[in-house]
Amino acid sequence: MSTINCIINSELIPISKASVSVSDLGLQRGYGIFDYFKILDNTPVFLDDHLNRFYRSAESMRLKLKYSDAELKDQIHELMNINKMPDSGIKLTLTGGDSADGFSLGSPNLIITQSPLPSYQSKGYGTGIKIVTHQHQRQMPAVKSIDYLMAVWLQPFIKQHNAQDVLYHNNNLITECPRANIFIVTKEEKVLTPSINVLNGIIRGKVLSLEVPFSITEVAITLDNVYDAKEIFMTSTTKNILPIVQIDNHQVGDGTPGRITQKIAESLLMVINKNPSSSSIMVS
Amino acid sequence: MSTINCIINSELIPISKASVSVSDLGLQRGYGIFDYFKILDNTPVFLDDHLNRFYRSAESMRLKLKYSDAELKDQIHELMNINKMPDSGIKLTLTGGDSADGFSLGSPNLIITQSPLPSYQSKGYGTGIKIVTHQHQRQMPAVKSIDYLMAVWLQPFIKQHNAQDVLYHNNNLITECPRANIFIVTKEEKVLTPSINVLNGIIRGKVLSLEVPFSITEVAITLDNVYDAKEIFMTSTTKNILPIVQIDNHQVGDGTPGRITQKIAESLLMVINKNPSSSSIMVS
Repeated sequence: MSTINCIINSELIPISKASVSVSDLGLQRGYGIFDYFKILDNTPVFLDDHLNRFYRSAESMRLKLKYSDAELKDQIHELMNINKMPDSGIKLTLTGGDSADGFSLGSPNLIITQSPLPSYQSKGYGTGIKIVTHQHQRQMPAVKSIDYLMAVWLQPFIKQHNAQDVLYHNNNLITECPRANIFIVTKEEKVLTPSINVLNGIIRGKVLSLEVPFSITEVAITLDNVYDAKEIFMTSTTKNILPIVQIDNHQVGDGTPGRITQKIAESLLMVINKNPSSSSIMVS
Repeated sequence: MSTINCIINSELIPISKASVSVSDLGLQRGYGIFDYFKILDNTPVFLDDHLNRFYRSAESMRLKLKYSDAELKDQIHELMNINKMPDSGIKLTLTGGDSADGFSLGSPNLIITQSPLPSYQSKGYGTGIKIVTHQHQRQMPAVKSIDYLMAVWLQPFIKQHNAQDVLYHNNNLITECPRANIFIVTKEEKVLTPSINVLNGIIRGKVLSLEVPFSITEVAITLDNVYDAKEIFMTSTTKNILPIVQIDNHQVGDGTPGRITQKIAESLLMVINKNPSSSSIMVS
């Protein structure tokens, strides 16, 4: 494969040589945010949604981004043009920057990387996956921070249970998976997703605004609600809609992906194919 | 000032050129641990305690340190010899390493840095400081992880209240400050410190084992207990014993550092001056 480049503070650099100072607060104190979007057929998917969330995360964490929306898009454009990866993912990371005292915010570093889409994409769609649950609440859940300490730490726990992912809950209320939102379909065929203490996923938002002949709403959801659900699925930028057929020791429905999940996946795909933000950047 | 060096994976390098790959899980996912100890008069203070905790943190986080205790001490020795900073602090950081998929653990990177002691040391000892409280529970509290997202984020909140630090509490039970443990002295002159969900600070441990003519014990402590306390102080490697004379809107005792706090500070200083781990490393 030819060299893949990235951009650090507007400077183009081969990913193999891309580094940040050991004094960066991202590394010193786990202080940073990011966002990630797909490129399909040379077109960023839901770019404006992702950039808006990136700016909101930065603002919440008091990290000043020194590039305008247009400048940021120019840099993304530049990277896409040089890397020539028509189907891929782009990640924007903004760190706390070099800190003189190891604690006070410095001048944030912006890192833009591009990488192949994860192979995960092709797994589990036909059969559905198993997840396990774990008590945990992400700090500052509305911010897409780099804090995945618990998520990385739980990987062996997930594997031990022959599961593919973990669902967090707190005080008996479920919230989200580390990198995905969750939806349940009740026996009454209502589609529900947790309303608070979660990241507002871009695909989650798209699902909530789908025009479908059943209600999709945000509400508090208990662990028992999940165990009783007729269908469960997760949503994320890399996974779109992924059916869940087992949670802890409970089989979901008849153990195969459900009818409503399937309908939502189809409706979502139509929205993605329209891709409203595609007009803003095209590779020349 | 002459060049300050650091050591990355056993390689000596000027701190100004020290960097890690942007693919490191420390930066990508906030996944890493560290420890920090003082050098006084060219002698590491409580070195074995700090290295033991460093190894325990690494083990808890499943990060494999490829150096033995002796090799680690050799590297520290080498750094002290070249930097020639007789009174300073040394920080060991172990990160998740370069991750192929941005999530799975790589080969951990060990970074050893040396820096001047923080000026904070000289402030507040005579008069005591003010702290504020905030609801938060550190994830994996027994591990000295790099997760200081909340602590860094709260800095403006602390300044707005003209305070110098913040005390975390959860479900009405206090735990710790971001970089210090807390002790209270009750009206009955019992010295207490929270027993669970805190980092086992090295100075905290030294205080708990002081030979003094009053009881010092670990116990659950409520916010009301703290507001009612006769004396409060915090302990940390950089601060030793720092008196607290105001918490939120409550004055502590008569608003000046207390008698028992003073006695504990004096007893601790005798222990530090003995410095049991000093024999293991001396700069040549």
